[in-house]
Amino acid sequence: MDKLEKRMKFLIEIDKLKEIYRQSLISDSSRHENDAEHSWHISIMAVVLYDYAPENVDLLKCIKMLLIHDIIEIYAGDTYVYDYTKMKDKKEREMEAAKKIYNILDDKMAKELYDLWIEFEECKTNESIYANTLDRIEPIILNYLTKGEMWKKNKITKEQVVSTRLNLIINGNEKIRQYILSIIDESVKKGYLIE
Amino acid sequence: MDKLEKRMKFLIEIDKLKEIYRQSLISDSSRHENDAEHSWHISIMAVVLYDYAPENVDLLKCIKMLLIHDIIEIYAGDTYVYDYTKMKDKKEREMEAAKKIYNILDDKMAKELYDLWIEFEECKTNESIYANTLDRIEPIILNYLTKGEMWKKNKITKEQVVSTRLNLIINGNEKIRQYILSIIDESVKKGYLIE
Repeated sequence: MDKLEKRMKFLIEIDKLKEIYRQSLISDSSRHENDAEHSWHISIMAVVLYDYAPENVDLLKCIKMLLIHDIIEIYAGDTYVYDYTKMKDKKEREMEAAKKIYNILDDKMAKELYDLWIEFEECKTNESIYANTLDRIEPIILNYLTKGEMWKKNKITKEQVVSTRLNLIINGNEKIRQYILSIIDESVKKGYLIE
Repeated sequence: MDKLEKRMKFLIEIDKLKEIYRQSLISDSSRHENDAEHSWHISIMAVVLYDYAPENVDLLKCIKMLLIHDIIEIYAGDTYVYDYTKMKDKKEREMEAAKKIYNILDDKMAKELYDLWIEFEECKTNESIYANTLDRIEPIILNYLTKGEMWKKNKITKEQVVSTRLNLIINGNEKIRQYILSIIDESVKKGYLIE
């Protein structure tokens, strides 16, 4: 296969991301959100909230990360962040999946996307901190909009949300952190989230 | 409302794009594709097929266009490109919708996104030609993968696909055009598309 055929094959394979369902419900509560929609939503968030990003973030690099960050879940599945048993071997499962999905591509593109995914996972650069921030706040917003239906179902506490999801944002932007904290507090007040 | 609140309100409103269903089926034929997934798919296509883009394309600008190009459909609905009656007042409906959705934002961000949408619609710059190319080829690929189910249902001919969808790509890249043309010819051969 030539380069274009490999890239087209990859683009066809990742259509399956539209069938990987997440814990979050979409805002009208009608169904679970899938990974493709989620990736779109946080990519557009990266554009619209860019004024609040850490300094010197390369927005293109950040959006590339967000567009591809979940495609390993086509083979590894979505791992609920509060499912501590499944979280244990998450890394191993996802590394296997990454090899499988990126090897469809030619070496140059495979390396670019794999490196972006690793950078996202390591979460040390400003781009990956901004990207991870968006990845973590979108489900909080959806949970709030859907009256905490999934939080309540899984008996999630404020402490879990703050420690697993919000603490990272401290390294991001204080204004976004304050905004999300106010949503969390409002959620506790309304009974969507356990104090 | 301050700037951050307006931007968050916009980001919440556009969650509705996940419920705007298109004519295309996703690749396993299980259901129709929605606009959010489609926007994700063509944005990642922009990254992966960039070697085949017209010269000097600003990839970030192109991806921003792709991420937002369909959000007017939250109010204007998806207009099937082969529905010639509905296509007549499409522009008018979409202009109204654009005013409504972008006015949620602060002026600076509203102007940036509105201008990107207009540029996409006018399709004169290299970025918008590349973006429109991707927007047109993704449904062709999905139609091929789903054995032309929607093409057959709507009695679409090869001539319609070529004139409405493929001719634009001539201004894009010849290699992509040839690849898509081979898929169209294969679709005719397999009976997915009327000769």
